[in-house]
Order: sequence, then C-alpha cells, then structure tokens
Amino acid sequence: MRLLADWGTTNRRAWLVGEDGEVLAKHADGRGTASIGPGEWPAAYAELEAKLGGAKPRVALLAGMVGSNRGWSEAPYLPCPAGADALAAGLHWVVPGKVAIVPGLSTMNPSADVMRGEEVQALGAAAAGLTPADGLTCHPGTHTKWVRLQGGRIAGFRTVMTGEIFGLLRSHSILADLLESEPEPGVAFRAGVDHGFEKADLTAELFGIRARVLLGAAPREEAGAYASGLLIGADLAVGLAGAKDARIHVIGRSDLALLFAAALEHRGREAIRVDGDAAALAGLRRIEEMRP
Amino acid sequence: MRLLADWGTTNRRAWLVGEDGEVLAKHADGRGTASIGPGEWPAAYAELEAKLGGAKPRVALLAGMVGSNRGWSEAPYLPCPAGADALAAGLHWVVPGKVAIVPGLSTMNPSADVMRGEEVQALGAAAAGLTPADGLTCHPGTHTKWVRLQGGRIAGFRTVMTGEIFGLLRSHSILADLLESEPEPGVAFRAGVDHGFEKADLTAELFGIRARVLLGAAPREEAGAYASGLLIGADLAVGLAGAKDARIHVIGRSDLALLFAAALEHRGREAIRVDGDAAALAGLRRIEEMRP
Repeated sequence: MRLLADWGTTNRRAWLVGEDGEVLAKHADGRGTASIGPGEWPAAYAELEAKLGGAKPRVALLAGMVGSNRGWSEAPYLPCPAGADALAAGLHWVVPGKVAIVPGLSTMNPSADVMRGEEVQALGAAAAGLTPADGLTCHPGTHTKWVRLQGGRIAGFRTVMTGEIFGLLRSHSILADLLESEPEPGVAFRAGVDHGFEKADLTAELFGIRARVLLGAAPREEAGAYASGLLIGADLAVGLAGAKDARIHVIGRSDLALLFAAALEHRGREAIRVDGDAAALAGLRRIEEMRP
Repeated sequence: MRLLADWGTTNRRAWLVGEDGEVLAKHADGRGTASIGPGEWPAAYAELEAKLGGAKPRVALLAGMVGSNRGWSEAPYLPCPAGADALAAGLHWVVPGKVAIVPGLSTMNPSADVMRGEEVQALGAAAAGLTPADGLTCHPGTHTKWVRLQGGRIAGFRTVMTGEIFGLLRSHSILADLLESEPEPGVAFRAGVDHGFEKADLTAELFGIRARVLLGAAPREEAGAYASGLLIGADLAVGLAGAKDARIHVIGRSDLALLFAAALEHRGREAIRVDGDAAALAGLRRIEEMRP
C-alpha cells in the first residue's frame, strides 16, 4: 500500500493505492503548506494517513510545494530535461525508507524558471496516455505553467503570474470594484484576449478598462471579463511563443482551465481539457514504480 | 488674495497668492481625498484656509482628485485637446463665486483615458516656460501619465499603472520579500529597463526574478532594482511609442522621477527634471488668470 499526495500551497490531495495500483481511498482538504508551521509537519502527515482510513502505507510520496523552503523539507530542484525516472532517482527522504518528497524542476529554457507539482501532472498525463509524449501542456493556477514535453520528458517550461496578478488587482487595486464578478468567456473576454496577445501595453491597458467605464465607453459589467481576457491573452503570448502546436492540453482547476481553453480556441489552437487530479495521480504512480 | 491647491488622493499642497501673483503662504499635508469622508469637505477646506494663516481668500481653485467621484464634488471631464482656457471656462463651483474645482481631462488619443491633476502641472510647466509648448511630459506616480503638448495645449495622454502595480507586488505578492529595499538606478535597474522596454513578457519575467534568485543565477539584493526597471521599461515602451522627442520633461515626485529620468537617459532620451509643485502652482495661476 502506498500513499501518494499532491501537496500544494493552498490544498492537498492524497490517494491510498494498493499493490496492484487500485485506489483504496482518497482525500482532499485545505491543509496546504501555507497553513502548516515549522515543526508541525510530522503531525500534518499523520493526520493525512488518518484521513485516508488509518492504514499504514509501506511508502509515501509527496509532490508540490511540500518540498519548497516553506514546506516540510527543501528538496533540491533537478535540471531539465527530466523524466519520471529522474524524479524517482532524486527522491528526497524525510522519513528514511518511508516518506519521500518528489523534487521540483528547474530550467534555463527559455529562461530561468522553477516548478513544484505541475511536473508530476505533465509527466503523469503523458505516462497515462492522457496527452501525447511530445507536446505543450498548459497548467492554469496562481501561476500558469507552460510545459514542453519531448519524448515523454520535460524539456523546459515557463511560468506566468497571471492568476496572482489578477487576484492582486481584484483585492487591492483601483480596479477592484470592476473585477468582482466571475469572468465569463464571452465577447468582452475574447476582446481582452486579443489585446493582451497582440499588444505589449498591459499595465496601460488595465487602466484603460477603468477609463472606458468612467467615460461610458464600455459597460461596467464587462470590465472583469475583459481584464481576465487581457491577462490571459498576455499569458498565451508567452506560452505560445514559437510554439507551432495545433493542440494544447490544459491541465488543472476547472474554472480557470475553462477560461484558458476558451482563450486558446479563440486564438486558433485546439484546447483539450485534462483532469489535474488524474494527471497528478498517474504521475505519482509512475514515479513510485520507477524508484530505485 | 487667491487660494490655489493641488488636492490629490494622498496629499494636498496649497498656496495663498497675492493680487500681484506673489506667494504669501504655502502648506502641504497628508489630508488627501482618501482621508476625507462625504460631508467632511467644507470642514477640510476651512482647515486648509486656517493652515495658510486664516486669511479669507477672494477665490479658491482646487485641482486633482478633489474633483473625482470620491472627492468633494464630481467635476466632469473635458475632452482633449484642451488648454488652460478650457479648464478656466469649465470650472466647477462648489461654493458659488468662491471655491471652484478644476475639471479633469479625458481623451480618446491614443485610447480612452482620464486624468485629474497632472493636466494642471503640464499646462503650468509650459505656461511658465519650464517646458516647451510642444513636447512630451512624463508624470511618474501611482499612475504614470504621459502628456502630449501641442501649441501649449494638451493634445492627448496615456496612463500606465506602474507605481500601483509595483506597490501591489511589494506588499502582497510572492515577490514581496525581494522588493523591500528602495530601488537604485544601477546596472540591475538598467537591465530591467531594457527587458521591459524590448520584450512583451512582463507577467512571466516578474516570476523569472524569483526563479533566478532561487537558482542562484542572480543576486537577491538586485531583484528589487531589476523589478522596478522592468516595470518602468514597460511603461516607457507605452509612453514613448511613436514619440520622436529627443527630450522628455519628467515632472513630479523626486524619488520616482529620478528612476524615470535614469530609464529615459538609458534609452537614449534626454530627461529634464521639472519640480511638480512649481508646475502645479504655475498651472493654477494661469487658470485663475484666464477664468471668465
């Protein structure tokens, strides 16, 4: 019996998996790394075992921000290109022989970047046949990750702070009152996507949203969707730079993934949605199978 | 005796000016519009008269966010092109014959935009000979304003949210701990300016700053200056778009104006600093002279 977990900043998802690979139990909650203090990790892990029914797994693999400097223990980044074999060989044991953290990845391609968690989803999706072994995956979230797969390995990736910046604007900026409603992928969203994708004036165009509402030149109720489209369009311009892929696989959280898929389709790419939990589970299984 | 005031969101600056134009008293404090509630305006204005010595001015002109929907009373925006004569003809009287608010400006050139306060500085600088009647002025602040002057009138302008977004990143983002120190216009700042000016990947490159520090590929203590340069470089790319001006006049707050001037010089333009208070006072005097 193995315990496999995707343990992020905000949430954790875990599975208890039998010796033949069958899922015996699963659990998800809001006990992300941000809610756990130094010294609380063994107890937080024990709580996770209890939530999964209390059985003692032979081994546990934990992926995501649990391996960051704000997590249980810092697992070094492995350089790209890297496959599941490299992650399996680089496991960082916090309880020797019993509980290991999956390392994150670093890249210099196309520029310096780091990742913890999405690499397991991307490799898992490819291993499970949910995506091809060669292609581009898009992981929307607080930080969007664009992952380039080649031969089932991760060749490089790029992070864009779209989700975090949208959240900052919505919570704290002069645009806050315009961004309250949940963005829908309609006409205003698509207009924002086009502007963000084609023009390099993001920090000016964001103010233009407010100016148009004040001048009666655009309806107030469309401002949030346009702003979301604008930021996602700028995100796509980075993620798709130089990419000829006709199909992009969008992995992860459903509401944001829906917006990214709509933006990709609008920009002429086929967007295929992949369940993030299924991808993470497949990746963790694969790494567990390959460990020395 | 006239009372002239530049009354912004955070600060207010006021002058008591004699019949021959001489400054009899001046005062500045932090009683910006954000600190004054509805119904408190007459008292806040009376307090300002008292701070200037208690003399009763014949007339008072107030410019800036005091005329916004969060100020004393909303003064409509006047369309560009507009000069001091148009502002003088459009005064919005809150105490008839006694206290007036200077209207803001709106433009559709190059896109929908609004402004309250900087128009008085730009027109005042030109009227006082601090800038030529034809040129581009840059007003750094929470929101940068780039103002195009033609024949001593404002032809159009553009707003960029650089200061606000830098503040959000510094206060609330994953980059917060990297942005604590005050940015200096050195090598890292200039590298950021070049990247922001030349490349359209702002929301990705911001995360790259963090990645490079985590990977030991850039020194932590340079991250803040690079981030400041990056945002200011992107700002310049908007403000200088299509502008052939060899000289740009930078009007306003000294610490930010210093960074914008350094960025402009680095990008091959001559940057001439102009005192924002002197420009505001000159603009208010000019409008008062021209009022019907």
